[in-house]
Amino acid sequence: MAQDNKKSEHGWGFQDTRFIVHPDRSVELTGGRYEICGFRMPDFIPFVENTLGVKVDPNDLHERNPPSPVAAPRRNTAFMDALQAALPDARTSEEPAERLVHSHGQATGDEVYRVLYQQLPRAVDLVFYCCDELEAQTLVRLAHEHDVCLIPYGGGTNVSGCLQLPENETRMVVAVNTQGLNKVLWVNKENRQVCVEAGITGRDLELALAAQGLTTGHEPDSVEFSTLGGWISTNASGMKKNRYGNIEDIVESVSLVTPTGQLETLHPFPRQSAGVQVRPMLFGSEGNFGLITKAVMRVRPLPEERAYQSVLFPDPERGVAFMYELSNSSYVPASIRLVDNNQFRFGLALKPAAGVGGRIKSQLQKLFIQNIKRIDISRMAVATIVMEGTAREVEVQQTLLSELAAKHQGFMAGAHNGKRGYNLTFAIAYIRDFLTKLHVLGETFETTLPWDKIHSVNRAIIAETERIHKDFGLPGRPFISYRITQLYPTGVCVYYTYGIYTRGVANPGQVAIDADHRLRAAVVEHGGAVSHHHGVGKFRHDLLKKVLPAQNADLVMALKNTLDPKNVFGVQNGVFFRGS
Amino acid sequence: MAQDNKKSEHGWGFQDTRFIVHPDRSVELTGGRYEICGFRMPDFIPFVENTLGVKVDPNDLHERNPPSPVAAPRRNTAFMDALQAALPDARTSEEPAERLVHSHGQATGDEVYRVLYQQLPRAVDLVFYCCDELEAQTLVRLAHEHDVCLIPYGGGTNVSGCLQLPENETRMVVAVNTQGLNKVLWVNKENRQVCVEAGITGRDLELALAAQGLTTGHEPDSVEFSTLGGWISTNASGMKKNRYGNIEDIVESVSLVTPTGQLETLHPFPRQSAGVQVRPMLFGSEGNFGLITKAVMRVRPLPEERAYQSVLFPDPERGVAFMYELSNSSYVPASIRLVDNNQFRFGLALKPAAGVGGRIKSQLQKLFIQNIKRIDISRMAVATIVMEGTAREVEVQQTLLSELAAKHQGFMAGAHNGKRGYNLTFAIAYIRDFLTKLHVLGETFETTLPWDKIHSVNRAIIAETERIHKDFGLPGRPFISYRITQLYPTGVCVYYTYGIYTRGVANPGQVAIDADHRLRAAVVEHGGAVSHHHGVGKFRHDLLKKVLPAQNADLVMALKNTLDPKNVFGVQNGVFFRGS
Repeated sequence: MAQDNKKSEHGWGFQDTRFIVHPDRSVELTGGRYEICGFRMPDFIPFVENTLGVKVDPNDLHERNPPSPVAAPRRNTAFMDALQAALPDARTSEEPAERLVHSHGQATGDEVYRVLYQQLPRAVDLVFYCCDELEAQTLVRLAHEHDVCLIPYGGGTNVSGCLQLPENETRMVVAVNTQGLNKVLWVNKENRQVCVEAGITGRDLELALAAQGLTTGHEPDSVEFSTLGGWISTNASGMKKNRYGNIEDIVESVSLVTPTGQLETLHPFPRQSAGVQVRPMLFGSEGNFGLITKAVMRVRPLPEERAYQSVLFPDPERGVAFMYELSNSSYVPASIRLVDNNQFRFGLALKPAAGVGGRIKSQLQKLFIQNIKRIDISRMAVATIVMEGTAREVEVQQTLLSELAAKHQGFMAGAHNGKRGYNLTFAIAYIRDFLTKLHVLGETFETTLPWDKIHSVNRAIIAETERIHKDFGLPGRPFISYRITQLYPTGVCVYYTYGIYTRGVANPGQVAIDADHRLRAAVVEHGGAVSHHHGVGKFRHDLLKKVLPAQNADLVMALKNTLDPKNVFGVQNGVFFRGS
Repeated sequence: MAQDNKKSEHGWGFQDTRFIVHPDRSVELTGGRYEICGFRMPDFIPFVENTLGVKVDPNDLHERNPPSPVAAPRRNTAFMDALQAALPDARTSEEPAERLVHSHGQATGDEVYRVLYQQLPRAVDLVFYCCDELEAQTLVRLAHEHDVCLIPYGGGTNVSGCLQLPENETRMVVAVNTQGLNKVLWVNKENRQVCVEAGITGRDLELALAAQGLTTGHEPDSVEFSTLGGWISTNASGMKKNRYGNIEDIVESVSLVTPTGQLETLHPFPRQSAGVQVRPMLFGSEGNFGLITKAVMRVRPLPEERAYQSVLFPDPERGVAFMYELSNSSYVPASIRLVDNNQFRFGLALKPAAGVGGRIKSQLQKLFIQNIKRIDISRMAVATIVMEGTAREVEVQQTLLSELAAKHQGFMAGAHNGKRGYNLTFAIAYIRDFLTKLHVLGETFETTLPWDKIHSVNRAIIAETERIHKDFGLPGRPFISYRITQLYPTGVCVYYTYGIYTRGVANPGQVAIDADHRLRAAVVEHGGAVSHHHGVGKFRHDLLKKVLPAQNADLVMALKNTLDPKNVFGVQNGVFFRGS
């Protein structure tokens, strides 16, 4: 299947994939990339209407404005001349369209809504397309000499404002697009290690490794677009972390080009005791320290078997109890995620019409009928499961999971629903962009919670969503939902997803920005972490400063001053934010 | 069983536990603490004789000298006065015996041999017994004000020279004994977290937690004596790390008292993305940054079941192949260790006389008979296994392990041998001290190896041991042996144990020091890590400097300068070593 892999310029994903509305009010995701592509979903718009308590008019779509004009670039001519002399073959661009693409990430209100419907306050002045490490070293050296600000740009999928430009930056700003740094430099199959350039996307990396029978197993929602360098700098986590680990477990060594030299983080041993280690200091550095050029990653043989499963629980409490007991076991599957009733029902709304000949026969619906008497459908929660390993391991895991589920009144709801639930993840941001056209603004954000705070923080977030709705006088009702995506013995990662209807609301983008911030603040106030894996960036710097002891910031500053004394990497994320 | 838990002053372990030689040349470990206590081992001395090719005379034991005199303490009287005024109730000591105890760790040649048979070049000037965090803060503040050097002292079990005093230190040196910081401050059972003061020993910690049905699962060989603070500062690893994690996985937050203030490493979430994290910067800090006072640790319910097992392989190559495949699986048991043929046979030499009525009937011997035809006993290797979890999990793990073992020509050799092999670990250092009396000096050291270097580094270490033996003109033959103790997908931790006979050799202590260093250097030269979990200290600082890029050292220095600008914590371990 030949596909045109052109990316959407400002919204999410591939250009060939978008939602359309049919005259019968059913919607369809175009193309054939995802499991939910290519069929009509009659329940989508009714679900939105029922949930938000509003009437959606498909003839009243909020269409994007043409890209807003971009100010003329600032030029540091001495730098430009030196760059031209040193790297005559490097590709650079001052085109407004390219500069605009490199001036934002994928947050809904503050970034995508702004660039599509309003205006970005500032764009980068130049885009530099970096294709090898020597180029990177030269670029960084010249920026240091000529007082230019560099902002590393990988896949552009950041949702914490990491790519947002500091408005108080007076120097020329260059976005360093790393997507040309996309080579697998070496593979050591016996040691299960590969060395990869940092601009490679997850999709290209996994394709290259699969050809050799290998995988990193790192599968964030953004895996098609995000890059290795981005994963390291945001301290990323993939959906299959239970088997493969988080990014800090997968990446065993990092190379970073800094204004004071190239930093290599020792030999890639799986573990060592060699004094204070530098490697962990680069995870979560969010572009503030230098340009990540390559890394040694741990890989695994492609699993002999991958199997999906799903478990239905009568209520979220029993689902959480199941997850809690599982988190202390030795058979946590590669991925297990528990979604609440709202997301469970939203998943059902993305199904084709029931009874359509030749369509998938919903095993779930059968189960409903069998079990309807003992279950309140409005309280049910579902866990989707991915198991990977040898056929024997998967078989054993399936048995043990099924035994544990039964203990918590869960029942197995089949592989089909598990696979569908897992893969739905890759379509969520397309749904986000479609909902924006329906005047529904929403965001997804995550946190880490200790076990004893899951229910209380969930309640607090629901309450805060309702307060926001009231405070802004929004139409209808808000949508708020959560899912538990990662398990640890001492806690979980929780994703919250909210949606608000903004038809007729003044300045919807700003409402979304304020709502985002209030919800993120409520999470921290009630005992959640600033973020589990999306990072701090511009959107959570004030929350971080609230919880970060002063001496911790001093230590991070000491690292910064050693690596980048002139603040060439002046993106100002996290503790480095200096006010807009 | 009431036991007197008095520790040996300079050698290893408890005073009630030591090897004695009976007139029939059998040896016995006194007391009842360990599985190998309380019976005669007729094969011990013959094993030593056969292996080393020497004749051992039990009437010619190398008895310890009385402790050598200690120089008068340096006194910073302004500091002493201020300390007395601020902390009148704190216990301090200038007694030579106490100062000597606090001036060394447990390395054979450079520390234990020196203190028992020769002389330490320098002793600390004062011992301060710290009992709470406020005391620690006051002490550190006064040391900072009065230019005094502080050296944290936990269990005294360090084997990397971390406790060795820098000979070029001209200030008054105070050992800070943390064993009074031994309280469990809080327990949160639901979140599986506890907060514990850092001077607690593993033994006391596990006793306190077991009373509440909990365990950290951290079980280093030294667990009876080493402390939480020591584990963090050396980046420790326990034998059951496959289930419970290494110390950096178990410790979720650290408190450190430094000359510039108290450092707390954020809330104890299992994982977060909150910019560059400070927590990992304290692991492996080896006393150079401050005094670790408490930590939040991850705990687990005590396992419903613990089961042991052992697997015999025809040769070490097949044992390693088994470990390699296992390391990619989801059923790695809590502990699995593969010992080579030399250690396997040494284990047999620690058995009671065969046929003694009422003694343990060796299942292993039965297996020998059953399988003797297809196995060369001089090549066999054995893996000892500990499984923990629910009864069901252990049952499943046992089945899967047995299936995998069969694939690699391994056969199960029973729980008894597994348990014995595992618990033998706790007696190894007593054996070391007994061998010293028999004029045999030996050491155990560890490294991390990638999978493709296991056999080549093993060969290199065997060759280097033989060269050392020849270069020093030692009697008999050297003993060299290895075991794989920790598995990772990309490599392993390997322990090497060597022994040399030194009867009639001039300056045996110095020979042992030189041999240690040459072997550790050979490991690094052939591609091993500086250390897997023992650390750098004084014995590997030159090896570290060889592999550590300059910018890495600069970053660690930047942290040091922020936390301790006047070098109060002047123990000079690792990159901070400034020459003797």
